[in-house]
Amino acid sequence: MSPDTTRALGGEFLGSALLAAVVVGSGIAAQTLSPSDTGLALLENALATGLGLAVLILVFQTVSGAHFNPVVSVVDALLHRKGWAITAAYIPAQVLGCIAGAILANLMFAAPAISWSTNDRASWPHLLAEVVATAGLVLVIFALVRTGRSHLAAPAVGAYIGAAYFFTSSTSFANPAITIGRAFSDTFAGIAPASVLPYIAAQLVGAGLGWLLVRGFFPATTAAPAASGGH
Amino acid sequence: MSPDTTRALGGEFLGSALLAAVVVGSGIAAQTLSPSDTGLALLENALATGLGLAVLILVFQTVSGAHFNPVVSVVDALLHRKGWAITAAYIPAQVLGCIAGAILANLMFAAPAISWSTNDRASWPHLLAEVVATAGLVLVIFALVRTGRSHLAAPAVGAYIGAAYFFTSSTSFANPAITIGRAFSDTFAGIAPASVLPYIAAQLVGAGLGWLLVRGFFPATTAAPAASGGH
Amino acid sequence: MSPDTTRALGGEFLGSALLAAVVVGSGIAAQTLSPSDTGLALLENALATGLGLAVLILVFQTVSGAHFNPVVSVVDALLHRKGWAITAAYIPAQVLGCIAGAILANLMFAAPAISWSTNDRASWPHLLAEVVATAGLVLVIFALVRTGRSHLAAPAVGAYIGAAYFFTSSTSFANPAITIGRAFSDTFAGIAPASVLPYIAAQLVGAGLGWLLVRGFFPATTAAPAASGGH
Amino acid sequence: MSPDTTRALGGEFLGSALLAAVVVGSGIAAQTLSPSDTGLALLENALATGLGLAVLILVFQTVSGAHFNPVVSVVDALLHRKGWAITAAYIPAQVLGCIAGAILANLMFAAPAISWSTNDRASWPHLLAEVVATAGLVLVIFALVRTGRSHLAAPAVGAYIGAAYFFTSSTSFANPAITIGRAFSDTFAGIAPASVLPYIAAQLVGAGLGWLLVRGFFPATTAAPAASGGH
Repeated sequence: MSPDTTRALGGEFLGSALLAAVVVGSGIAAQTLSPSDTGLALLENALATGLGLAVLILVFQTVSGAHFNPVVSVVDALLHRKGWAITAAYIPAQVLGCIAGAILANLMFAAPAISWSTNDRASWPHLLAEVVATAGLVLVIFALVRTGRSHLAAPAVGAYIGAAYFFTSSTSFANPAITIGRAFSDTFAGIAPASVLPYIAAQLVGAGLGWLLVRGFFPATTAAPAASGGH
Repeated sequence: MSPDTTRALGGEFLGSALLAAVVVGSGIAAQTLSPSDTGLALLENALATGLGLAVLILVFQTVSGAHFNPVVSVVDALLHRKGWAITAAYIPAQVLGCIAGAILANLMFAAPAISWSTNDRASWPHLLAEVVATAGLVLVIFALVRTGRSHLAAPAVGAYIGAAYFFTSSTSFANPAITIGRAFSDTFAGIAPASVLPYIAAQLVGAGLGWLLVRGFFPATTAAPAASGGH
Repeated sequence: MSPDTTRALGGEFLGSALLAAVVVGSGIAAQTLSPSDTGLALLENALATGLGLAVLILVFQTVSGAHFNPVVSVVDALLHRKGWAITAAYIPAQVLGCIAGAILANLMFAAPAISWSTNDRASWPHLLAEVVATAGLVLVIFALVRTGRSHLAAPAVGAYIGAAYFFTSSTSFANPAITIGRAFSDTFAGIAPASVLPYIAAQLVGAGLGWLLVRGFFPATTAAPAASGGH
Repeated sequence: MSPDTTRALGGEFLGSALLAAVVVGSGIAAQTLSPSDTGLALLENALATGLGLAVLILVFQTVSGAHFNPVVSVVDALLHRKGWAITAAYIPAQVLGCIAGAILANLMFAAPAISWSTNDRASWPHLLAEVVATAGLVLVIFALVRTGRSHLAAPAVGAYIGAAYFFTSSTSFANPAITIGRAFSDTFAGIAPASVLPYIAAQLVGAGLGWLLVRGFFPATTAAPAASGGH
């Protein structure tokens, strides 16, 4: 592997680990510190996740593209003819990173390194929500990429996920890697292992829908619009 | 219709649908998860709406202008001599989109697809608030457009609506299409059908006032100010 | 008066009015909807104010400079040799605007148009806080102006005021015009008339301190730093 | 000393003082106003700190680099071959600034000027959290510096610290100077003197780890990526 490829895989691993640490860690803090109002705990979890995710994209965007998410890597390969070899290497880095990050969060909060989540989350409305959340995420990312505005991905994706924690009933996992990682912590942000596969299936459906929307609305990559472009 | 026009109408439909899903969905989550403090629920609803709206404007700005709002389309036609035909086509796309989005939110949260809202909201102070909210929204959008800063519309409009949820007594609908859509969900963000027409009337008055303010303060479209321009 | 001067004075009036409507209106909403936790109410008030102020600066920056604040106008005249005539005309526009905005907020929330506030706020620690808050505001604004980064004033000032609601004990009025306007509403954001003059005195001291700091740290106006400039 | 060096040291002192005033002051406000939910108080503290820190970086970035943090100065010296003399002068300015700011916060809130904190914070999970928090901070700052995006440091560092208040169990001090300053206030954000040295030791470990990560992922300083660069 070239040094750049090694760095890219390392960036996907570390970025995914820190993302999972942010999601799971802030979930533990929120649950512990705001025990009497689930909405307030989710607000704390959502703000920390949105801000943390935006920063992680800024940090790793030039290293690996800052996907941290298998469905983003797959849609990127489909749309932009990236090689499938690198995509196939990204996915285990993302999954292992998310598992490592969940364990790190557990340890920072003095919990057992691994405890299987008991949050059963799979229901038809939640799976519909995961389809919507993932399709929206794919649309946001590649709308920006295909209009020459990738530099806005960090705040846009952070804002999107922060909002989606509330506007979807599933709190918007929208990422198979973090879905797996979140099974390793029996805390606020966890998901029971039995719910993982249904969530991933819904995310794949959402990714496919998002891919179709991107192709329909942004048929070709264009340059950035002029600053005074049509509102 | 040209492919670009088709995409623009599709963009208005889908963007309006997702906006309504954000508004109604986050309202349901907030009401359910923070039942004991209405201010906290409104804060969750406002932050999700402001962030989500900003992202939707980013996504659809190059596709359709990202109006999602009949009064924005009408003022745009008045100020910039856009054709009335396209404006007339935008409005049903926006209204149908908002209805579809409200239904989607209901389904994501396991509620009936349609339940007429029972939130009576029409009172003189609330209607005054809608006039202010809509005039302000029009002023924000077209101040940026006419000074060559449309690229700031996404964060500015999101921030404006997030603030307006709190500084107006009506929680700032400021949009006839979403006012109609919100009638389809008997939840936190809903509005009783009997309040819809008074709200829309107030929004039209506000749009007219906003149009006058834009013409007075920004009589002609100018280029973007230099970065070091006068504070 | 030239049309540009008329527009500038109108911009200061309307911008100040809307700023006061945001501050007082969101204060009323917060107090009403979150009656059991003053910190939560202040958080709602602070976020609405910070976001609203940022948007108002964006809207009126090219019209009037978006001061909305007599001490900002005075320091601007001192530092940049603006004419004192225009400064003298700005101040009554700002004060009358803030009064009008407080009345508008009262009416939107079905309160009497005018009710004198009964919030006694003047104490030595609060006055110290106003000195700090105002000096900091002046430093933030003119640090950006004198380094060619005025385009960042909107988010920076909004963020500063949002933070200052919490890090100062006075909740950071930092503006004589809005201090006067806030006396006209006996609600969350109000200030008893007897506290107005002490607050304004502290704000003038803070403005003087801020002016000295700006002169010390930013002795001359420079161009914007290159994007890759030293961190 | 040259005038520029004097200004830089003054900037580090004043910026560190204001940062400590923001952290400690908003902690006092949060604790006082939101006594019944620690998570809500931490949310208020985190938002005020994140916003305030971002603004302070904007203000002082062109003056001193806006480090406010000995580990940032040391890593900057290691990576960019800055002189050790200026680094050695920055550190006492930062420490004295943070102490002064904590005292200022105490006085603004009518507390004794100095009261030693009684918050014992040192435990192995908290020290692990400080390692993670500090390594992350170093990585965020120097990832931006070494890719020509220093102008994003203000929002990125503010967002990072706002998130890290929640995703680390220690609430992310990540700064030896502010750790010392926070010992001077027996309030929400305080830290017992006996916990100071363990925290600083963990921060130094984290800084070393961050330095290695920066060297690994960003081996050389590059220009800013083009706006349409790879997502």
